Amino acid sequence: MRDVAVIGVGMTPWGELWEKSLRTIFVEPALLALQDAGVDKVDSLIVGSMSSGLFVGQEHLASLLADYLGHGPIPAARVESACASGALALKMGFIEVASGLSDIVLVGGVEKMTDVNGNEATYALGTAADQEYECFHGITFPGLYSLIARAHMERYGTTREQLAMVAVKNHANGAKNPLAQYPFPVTVDAVLKSVLVADPLRVLDCSPITDGAAAVVLAPVETAKKLKKPVVKITGLGHATDTIALSGRKDIAWLEAVHLAGKQAYKMAGRKPQDIHLAEVHDCFTIAEICITEALGFADKGQGGPAVDRGLTALGGKIPVNPSGGLKSKGHPVGATGVAQVVEVVKQLRGEAGERQVKGARVGLAQNMGGSGGSCLVHIFESE
Amino acid sequence: MRDVAVIGVGMTPWGELWEKSLRTIFVEPALLALQDAGVDKVDSLIVGSMSSGLFVGQEHLASLLADYLGHGPIPAARVESACASGALALKMGFIEVASGLSDIVLVGGVEKMTDVNGNEATYALGTAADQEYECFHGITFPGLYSLIARAHMERYGTTREQLAMVAVKNHANGAKNPLAQYPFPVTVDAVLKSVLVADPLRVLDCSPITDGAAAVVLAPVETAKKLKKPVVKITGLGHATDTIALSGRKDIAWLEAVHLAGKQAYKMAGRKPQDIHLAEVHDCFTIAEICITEALGFADKGQGGPAVDRGLTALGGKIPVNPSGGLKSKGHPVGATGVAQVVEVVKQLRGEAGERQVKGARVGLAQNMGGSGGSCLVHIFESE
Repeated sequence: MRDVAVIGVGMTPWGELWEKSLRTIFVEPALLALQDAGVDKVDSLIVGSMSSGLFVGQEHLASLLADYLGHGPIPAARVESACASGALALKMGFIEVASGLSDIVLVGGVEKMTDVNGNEATYALGTAADQEYECFHGITFPGLYSLIARAHMERYGTTREQLAMVAVKNHANGAKNPLAQYPFPVTVDAVLKSVLVADPLRVLDCSPITDGAAAVVLAPVETAKKLKKPVVKITGLGHATDTIALSGRKDIAWLEAVHLAGKQAYKMAGRKPQDIHLAEVHDCFTIAEICITEALGFADKGQGGPAVDRGLTALGGKIPVNPSGGLKSKGHPVGATGVAQVVEVVKQLRGEAGERQVKGARVGLAQNMGGSGGSCLVHIFESE
Repeated sequence: MRDVAVIGVGMTPWGELWEKSLRTIFVEPALLALQDAGVDKVDSLIVGSMSSGLFVGQEHLASLLADYLGHGPIPAARVESACASGALALKMGFIEVASGLSDIVLVGGVEKMTDVNGNEATYALGTAADQEYECFHGITFPGLYSLIARAHMERYGTTREQLAMVAVKNHANGAKNPLAQYPFPVTVDAVLKSVLVADPLRVLDCSPITDGAAAVVLAPVETAKKLKKPVVKITGLGHATDTIALSGRKDIAWLEAVHLAGKQAYKMAGRKPQDIHLAEVHDCFTIAEICITEALGFADKGQGGPAVDRGLTALGGKIPVNPSGGLKSKGHPVGATGVAQVVEVVKQLRGEAGERQVKGARVGLAQNMGGSGGSCLVHIFESE
């Protein structure tokens, strides 16, 4: 397999983009990524999207986007793994370049979620859970994560305040990100007083509904060097699944797919959790980030709550988690999230992250997961 | 890149499978494929499905199926390119094995289409067209293909009877396929007298709505030889896109993406149209097969009608097309079709196709496309 580098990244502001269509939302960051890479032709397009069918009534998405981008008749593929669709697109692009089949691959993620009403969005997101075994009985995603939160609190003594601290940290970071949907700080008190969604989770524990996209350009490391681009290499890749229904798991307070994907990625990169300078992780709910920091080895089992409480995962802490603001503050257009994480990691490793720059960052990690942890991909990136 | 072989295939009867869930429909042929390959572990699962979201309210499909198959926590990916989702899954599996990342990859395709009513199915299928530029104005898929048919008839003198001959040929083949949804012959007269759907296309010009799945197992050729399996190698691969809206094309009577994908596949395999012993192609409507035989070089431009009329593409003809019965008679569970084509080609190349066996077949081709030709994949297979 050839070594693969990210040679360009692109992202535009996220939010409720009612005036823009799905295709426009995608094309804008895609053009930025191509410009950043300094290439005007690509061999292939791979797009992650969770449910363009349910959100905007459009499948056959990759062909549509290749055409609208003006790059038809290139091969174009859409991939889906619920909210991990973006990272799955990155993996597929990585393999395509590594195999030698393609040299320059554009990888994107996109979701337009605000064209439907709240009930429809809740239904569409519920398709990431087991429709027949879970949603049919009435549970929604905040409900599933509230079960995880409750189990974690019971077993490890994780507190309601520690959950809130995740939101406080990520909003503090997001306030420094001009592309974030909610770029403002929140306090522990504000989280605790926000509307209850599914006990113990409140609305400020939940990532928002977002329209947005992100794109990156991949190439062999040799090509990257010829283009005289800063070389950010993908050194590790892990991908694992779990039962998508919570009821099938031995321990719902532990994200086994995250643990396995992380283990694979660390092994491939020859790295350990202590070697990581920053991580972008899938904080779809505050409890998710706590479980992820444990599964990736940034904190011991059960110690994810105290870790955020003590500032371990804050900017300036031992292992800054979600310097971009995370899903919580930056927004969560589900299929785009995994690609936006890569945009942030690459900017950090290039030293281009402005106010939220992690000093001296050379090794970064991105963790993206589907549903309540039924699928997970972890990638490790290193600058030269 | 490593050479890749298909070492196992599986398919179960297609039809209106109301008593079976999506996951059951997938698992049955997947287990057959694993049994056929003689392996009980796989490194990865890749599943093609066009719209499990709109048809059964389930995304996050690959994780669900990996789990239900008992193969979690393996990596699992779902891919989508409308009705070409199956062949896209094959391509992704091919790259994964060729790159060296995985050794044994299970590739499947599945769609459960009859849990929704006719209007809902028409809407879901319409998402393979350009929702905003085409479907919004009221056109459906039979309508889009009727425009193609009308253009082809006007330009080349293709007759209504020649269209019917495609259905007659494919039903004659399908009558020999015990897994086909409609395994019975039809006459030209029956086609011409069937209900008008979108002039000039009648209901017997259209492929049906189907529940079904298919699966194949891929491995490096070296592994295939060690397993002492008959080696069917993937020697050619082509993948191209076109505007998904017909209005964007120079010539709507010509399938450019099919032509380009075919050209790439022939080039990679070092083959010409004349070298192909049989082809499974995407006859979603009778006119589609006529256009495809031209785009793949089995007939000259404009001569697809006379070709089927003269028996060139019949079993026993110069280049048998759709010996399985094609989408028309075998059925068309959209995401599964591209994988079922591979099942047929492999059976033919192994000499296991029973009554519909093409004698001495050693080189086969599978062509699978999305929408009205907005995406196309062509694969070439050869037995040793």
